[in-house]
Amino acid sequence: MAKLKEFAVTPDPDDHRLVERVTGIDHEGNEVTATVTVERPLTLYLNAQEIVTMMTIGDYPEYLAVGYLVNQNMLLADDEITGIDYEEDIETIVVRTEHQSDFEDKLKKKTLTSGCAMGTVFGDLMEKFDEIELPASTRIRTSDLYRLVKKINMAPSLYLEAGAIHGCVLAEDDQPLIYMEDVGRHNAVDKIAGYMRINGISGDDKIFYTTGRLTSEMVIKTVQMSIPILISRSGFTAWGVELARQADLTLIGRARGKRFLALSGERRIEFDADADVASDEPGRQSRKGANRA
Amino acid sequence: MAKLKEFAVTPDPDDHRLVERVTGIDHEGNEVTATVTVERPLTLYLNAQEIVTMMTIGDYPEYLAVGYLVNQNMLLADDEITGIDYEEDIETIVVRTEHQSDFEDKLKKKTLTSGCAMGTVFGDLMEKFDEIELPASTRIRTSDLYRLVKKINMAPSLYLEAGAIHGCVLAEDDQPLIYMEDVGRHNAVDKIAGYMRINGISGDDKIFYTTGRLTSEMVIKTVQMSIPILISRSGFTAWGVELARQADLTLIGRARGKRFLALSGERRIEFDADADVASDEPGRQSRKGANRA
Repeated sequence: MAKLKEFAVTPDPDDHRLVERVTGIDHEGNEVTATVTVERPLTLYLNAQEIVTMMTIGDYPEYLAVGYLVNQNMLLADDEITGIDYEEDIETIVVRTEHQSDFEDKLKKKTLTSGCAMGTVFGDLMEKFDEIELPASTRIRTSDLYRLVKKINMAPSLYLEAGAIHGCVLAEDDQPLIYMEDVGRHNAVDKIAGYMRINGISGDDKIFYTTGRLTSEMVIKTVQMSIPILISRSGFTAWGVELARQADLTLIGRARGKRFLALSGERRIEFDADADVASDEPGRQSRKGANRA
Repeated sequence: MAKLKEFAVTPDPDDHRLVERVTGIDHEGNEVTATVTVERPLTLYLNAQEIVTMMTIGDYPEYLAVGYLVNQNMLLADDEITGIDYEEDIETIVVRTEHQSDFEDKLKKKTLTSGCAMGTVFGDLMEKFDEIELPASTRIRTSDLYRLVKKINMAPSLYLEAGAIHGCVLAEDDQPLIYMEDVGRHNAVDKIAGYMRINGISGDDKIFYTTGRLTSEMVIKTVQMSIPILISRSGFTAWGVELARQADLTLIGRARGKRFLALSGERRIEFDADADVASDEPGRQSRKGANRA
């Protein structure tokens, strides 16, 4: 497919289904109106099998559904998707495949014994995780990293509009390509994974950016997408670091202004920027956690 | 039981099982050592039924296990707990009840038809949610709110030690009583719910504080604990606000320094503080999201 443009896909801060205006009072007791993020349920089926009900802002349901199945290893590389039916009124989405998937089969067997297949699925995930080899030659220049993070922070977003939301970005060099936001950071990741699967985008030469913490879950999903570099403005967990080292994933956290910390795969980083010229975060670039005051 | 003291239960920032020291490089390529939060799996059984594997920092597993079951409505008020067996080496915890619980029965029935009982459980939760009446007479004075938030921000914590963690506090007036932290905010809430169940603490005259966002999940859990006032330094989601209004929960968000925003149950707030004297957040009080730079 053709090369993706900068910000080829983004959330739409003007989409009135995604935010709501509500009234309340402020700390002085004055009536005020606030903008808040909408979350709504979406129940996902794989063929006839009910899989999960997710809470989501509701944009890009097709990407979310496919990405969830891919990242849970329920939809394998050779499973052909024959249809995706989203029914907005009943908050349901059905992903159809040509053949009943291996996962549905496993789920049926498993339910006869213990009721919920999540244990099996997790075991499968880790098995696949161990097999993935991330490309060793992909690099990230610190000058690109600084430009990339600045572009992401300056982009119009639901975060700037209403707060209480996480963002994820699929990037290449200093270019943010696909930008997704959602109430849970796992949904934002899944929407990007779904976009990549449906549009046949490879992760090999890409960079993944998230506003959320670098947990084991985030590391596993990034590796599953074959993306060799993961960046966050937030911190690390110990298991996230351990899994990243195991998979040889470049893990960069606490990336704010000119600062960052790399705890795995450091050799993919090229220090070509003078850290002194990268600005510290002023004004609109600053992002105080998952909300704004 | 006797009245709880301030910070009767807190995380232990000196517990070496909770944080790890790892080495990496900083933005100038210099070797640095960082402190990161530990997350580990804990598989929960209710009697012989495997329920879920949670990722947790691992302190207070008994409170986490019982709180999870209570908040998922799997352990009802009249279910008697006869034992809690935590096996640290195999990362497993078993909660035993005198009789097989109503939930296990439902789970068995449900698995015969669709494989995972989470839909049923959610339906049950909402049914119970609609029945709960929160006490109308509990009040929060703004002077207490300012003192409470200040005490919480100044307390020693894993957040200050390693970042990438959420905190929750059970409070009364201006007193933080039970302070829990965990990699997921739902775990921190569940640990408090477990403490309350095991020690017979009523939520009626209490206040709940969280560093996380005011989502539907957080509102449902607070209402389930019969706590009439929920405060966060983070923002709101629309469904969180809607459910809070439905349950007549006092919902205070974006609470930083002297500022806050109340979007539900405003009448429980008594404006007795001069907002001008409440300090804005300086230095150590400030908490930049779920990590520190």
